[in-house]
Amino acid sequence: MNIGFIGLGNMGAPMALNLLKAGHHVYVYDLVESTVQMLEASGAVRAASPAKVASADIDMLITMLPASVHVKQVYLGDDGVLAAVGKQVLLIDSSTIDPQTAREVAAQAAAQGNDMLDAPVSGGTGGAQAGTLTFMVGGDEAVFERALPVLQAMGKNIVYCGGAGNGQVAKVANNMLLGISMIGAAEAMNLGVSLGMDPKVLAGIINTSSGRCWSTEVYNPYPGVVETAPASRGYAGGFGADLMLKDLGLATEAARAAKVPVVMGAAAQQLYQTFSSQGHGKLDFSGIIKLFSDK
Amino acid sequence: MNIGFIGLGNMGAPMALNLLKAGHHVYVYDLVESTVQMLEASGAVRAASPAKVASADIDMLITMLPASVHVKQVYLGDDGVLAAVGKQVLLIDSSTIDPQTAREVAAQAAAQGNDMLDAPVSGGTGGAQAGTLTFMVGGDEAVFERALPVLQAMGKNIVYCGGAGNGQVAKVANNMLLGISMIGAAEAMNLGVSLGMDPKVLAGIINTSSGRCWSTEVYNPYPGVVETAPASRGYAGGFGADLMLKDLGLATEAARAAKVPVVMGAAAQQLYQTFSSQGHGKLDFSGIIKLFSDK
Amino acid sequence: MNIGFIGLGNMGAPMALNLLKAGHHVYVYDLVESTVQMLEASGAVRAASPAKVASADIDMLITMLPASVHVKQVYLGDDGVLAAVGKQVLLIDSSTIDPQTAREVAAQAAAQGNDMLDAPVSGGTGGAQAGTLTFMVGGDEAVFERALPVLQAMGKNIVYCGGAGNGQVAKVANNMLLGISMIGAAEAMNLGVSLGMDPKVLAGIINTSSGRCWSTEVYNPYPGVVETAPASRGYAGGFGADLMLKDLGLATEAARAAKVPVVMGAAAQQLYQTFSSQGHGKLDFSGIIKLFSDK
Amino acid sequence: MNIGFIGLGNMGAPMALNLLKAGHHVYVYDLVESTVQMLEASGAVRAASPAKVASADIDMLITMLPASVHVKQVYLGDDGVLAAVGKQVLLIDSSTIDPQTAREVAAQAAAQGNDMLDAPVSGGTGGAQAGTLTFMVGGDEAVFERALPVLQAMGKNIVYCGGAGNGQVAKVANNMLLGISMIGAAEAMNLGVSLGMDPKVLAGIINTSSGRCWSTEVYNPYPGVVETAPASRGYAGGFGADLMLKDLGLATEAARAAKVPVVMGAAAQQLYQTFSSQGHGKLDFSGIIKLFSDK
Repeated sequence: MNIGFIGLGNMGAPMALNLLKAGHHVYVYDLVESTVQMLEASGAVRAASPAKVASADIDMLITMLPASVHVKQVYLGDDGVLAAVGKQVLLIDSSTIDPQTAREVAAQAAAQGNDMLDAPVSGGTGGAQAGTLTFMVGGDEAVFERALPVLQAMGKNIVYCGGAGNGQVAKVANNMLLGISMIGAAEAMNLGVSLGMDPKVLAGIINTSSGRCWSTEVYNPYPGVVETAPASRGYAGGFGADLMLKDLGLATEAARAAKVPVVMGAAAQQLYQTFSSQGHGKLDFSGIIKLFSDK
Repeated sequence: MNIGFIGLGNMGAPMALNLLKAGHHVYVYDLVESTVQMLEASGAVRAASPAKVASADIDMLITMLPASVHVKQVYLGDDGVLAAVGKQVLLIDSSTIDPQTAREVAAQAAAQGNDMLDAPVSGGTGGAQAGTLTFMVGGDEAVFERALPVLQAMGKNIVYCGGAGNGQVAKVANNMLLGISMIGAAEAMNLGVSLGMDPKVLAGIINTSSGRCWSTEVYNPYPGVVETAPASRGYAGGFGADLMLKDLGLATEAARAAKVPVVMGAAAQQLYQTFSSQGHGKLDFSGIIKLFSDK
Repeated sequence: MNIGFIGLGNMGAPMALNLLKAGHHVYVYDLVESTVQMLEASGAVRAASPAKVASADIDMLITMLPASVHVKQVYLGDDGVLAAVGKQVLLIDSSTIDPQTAREVAAQAAAQGNDMLDAPVSGGTGGAQAGTLTFMVGGDEAVFERALPVLQAMGKNIVYCGGAGNGQVAKVANNMLLGISMIGAAEAMNLGVSLGMDPKVLAGIINTSSGRCWSTEVYNPYPGVVETAPASRGYAGGFGADLMLKDLGLATEAARAAKVPVVMGAAAQQLYQTFSSQGHGKLDFSGIIKLFSDK
Repeated sequence: MNIGFIGLGNMGAPMALNLLKAGHHVYVYDLVESTVQMLEASGAVRAASPAKVASADIDMLITMLPASVHVKQVYLGDDGVLAAVGKQVLLIDSSTIDPQTAREVAAQAAAQGNDMLDAPVSGGTGGAQAGTLTFMVGGDEAVFERALPVLQAMGKNIVYCGGAGNGQVAKVANNMLLGISMIGAAEAMNLGVSLGMDPKVLAGIINTSSGRCWSTEVYNPYPGVVETAPASRGYAGGFGADLMLKDLGLATEAARAAKVPVVMGAAAQQLYQTFSSQGHGKLDFSGIIKLFSDK
């Protein structure tokens, strides 16, 4: 298949490479010249602008951008995708952005006859490289079915979430809960150890009890409990605290727009902002335990 | 074995019944006459006071009391257990209380030569009746081994947590995290549904992703997602909001004593207090979602 | 002076009336016909669109709009103010919006040679009618001096806050602190009274001590403490909880953009959202005490 | 008058000195020998134990102790005050403790015929030395009148708060609100300055507006705004963050006992605990602004 790909950052570049590996023909665009060259060396074809990607001979166009402002610009700008793309091209935005913007862009695409999906991912750069990302996909279900084989070249778990924007809703809701339970896990582990328990014993009890969550089982924030977790290597790598902060910002903004309270979600956002303001935004997000105790 | 049992409330009575069923000889005491009669009808022997239970011909004495103040009174009072009990009797307190008090009482027991375990439970009245409670046990490990067969008559999952008080520490840490993740689950479900997602689809995605926790998988607070959960029967039964509030109070008090921050734990306590002050303390604790939305 | 006025809502209409009373010639625009007629009856001249106001023979143009989206549309839209206005016209936006948008619009005005001030107000509809509003003004100081006489026809306390956007910053910072201290006052009063104190005695002590704030002295949330406060008339009138919620949303958004933590500010926003979601958004913002106790 | 004084710490010693200066005859007790010697050198008479102070020829006995546990021990212990004191002696506890304990001790005193007041202070060591403390006094009003002349030798502002324990209630409610508004002031100042405002201009606006509070006017946490405030001398001296943390702990505990929510109060407690756990507990409590920004 002929596929356009705009946004070749830490996530986008390995995703595009996986499309090439799967035998697709890929047109690429990014502002960073070196990344474009790397993709060219792997067989991609360079385009000079988003509009040039959009007007190439493609069946599908995927975008992977940092934030809502870039998505609006790339799709809706004067020299953007929608102004240049043919009606037959299926549009997929894999950026993590707020659901409202995702729905606005999808509505404008629909108005001019283009099918569009929002398909944010989880799984990090490791998952992007291994082709094991989870895609949370919003849009028409028949369109989802058409996109599925291409998404499967980049991910392992492709989940249909309902209408336009619902991929973003699912991601924002999941990650808000993740941020909350990670801080909860950090507080519970820190409290228990301060009161005299062995961290592994405590984690073992929680993990067979009602407090168990992904943050205690797979990604325990206390050093030495889970050998493969960032906590056991100084909180290097993984999912950065600043990325969690960004997602919590999307969650509280979406809640503000929807007029629903997210008391714990907002507290989590503020604690991650405090952690980041203290200079730790590049650490893995499980490092938030250091806000409370630096042992 | 000959066993004393003090405190025959909603939890204590079925626990004592299970000891009788297992063939033990049980001496009982409670302030409520009707409960004592019910136990007598099942084969228990009534004693006139905690001290009378303690001075009966017993090998082991189990207490199941509402709060620290009762534990102190029953064990340390002038007419209490420690003043009357023989050195050979193994003492087990299954009340949920603060770790400091548990350690104080255990230290006084040890000072006069009595082995003692703290062994708070989880699993609710259903688990007490079915004999499937989880016991989190603190104290000497050899003493734990001696108590094990008796605890197994009342529970299924008997976990050794380390030295005196650690049973309470494990319970308080687990339940604090449970309270936090339940509110987080309520906020995430409410946010996602408000933004247009189907609650079952959203729960399905979270449960295969990094936001998953016991509160989304087993006990989802959104009505209709988990058929067996209290949310699907109007938040009746289960683990009452006021009981969660009590445990969160123990957690924040333990944190205050240990001088460690529990920002989210304290927020959870205050939200449950708000929910209770609004008149909902008797609902299951997953009903906290009604604080944010009454759909 | 000849003045344009766009936005004749609960605040804008009485402000424009005060300009007429002061002898100014006023061109007005609003979507609501009845308000325009009322202003006409008082001597204003109707214009058919924002652009028509802007292109009238005016020296100054004032806008009073509900939110950022309207400010952007009225100033920057295709048929908007900037496209139609002459360079000699001094622009003043009195809407309460986020500082970023205020700065964007001011920058575009400056780029085409128009002086512009942001001048949000406090004092409510009562202050608008009485001409006693406080104006917090951002922009060039010489421009501020030129605007001063006109603002004084509508307000009593006109404060220069520094460069463009700083009027909005001052308002957002002040109102965030107001929201926080109002909830704090509600909690402190509710706690003290629950513990047995007379509310007037407690307020008297706080007001001569280090806890004193505008929310305890002037606007005490406990009924009967300050006779003129909304708490003493069922929380009717005053500054609505939903307006406080809007301002707290502006504050947390500004903090997110500035990457600074506002832990208490975000908690205040969420508590007001909870209060509003429970159906109380139209009450005065001091009614938040009812979230905790409905006595 | 003959007065007993137990507890000669940073607060108690200068208070006792002021009683001596006012011409009273003072019997003193403390565990720290050097302080006792200092008081002796100023004319006090040493007693060998709390009971010896209580059984001396005194009309009034004042205690100034660190926490509830010490108050219980000194008054209710086997060798304590109540066991030794004559009925004619008026008892005054100036310690800051929880209202429940204050009421328990007062009830026991009353039961044996002793009048008792709780009279916690504010004003710090500076106020203790200068004799300008504020006393918040709970107990019988006629007893308060009898104590007044003696309290005036140590303080300037002596406030009657109602029945037993109400002095503690007033202090705990005031200081909880103080902790909340100080963090709010820190966040508002930090936000405004981060968004480009001059800190003095911002403080000036807040102080003439609805956000004003003691924490912005007298004790502004931003360096350089109030010259006499600890913020302008590196947060040295003043009222230590760990003392604020203690008072917030008393407030949340009192709220727990009273079953009322204090959401912001608990958040303030946890933020001060976080600040203290990061090693800053000895700084003035306005230093909490450093948690969010270390400029």
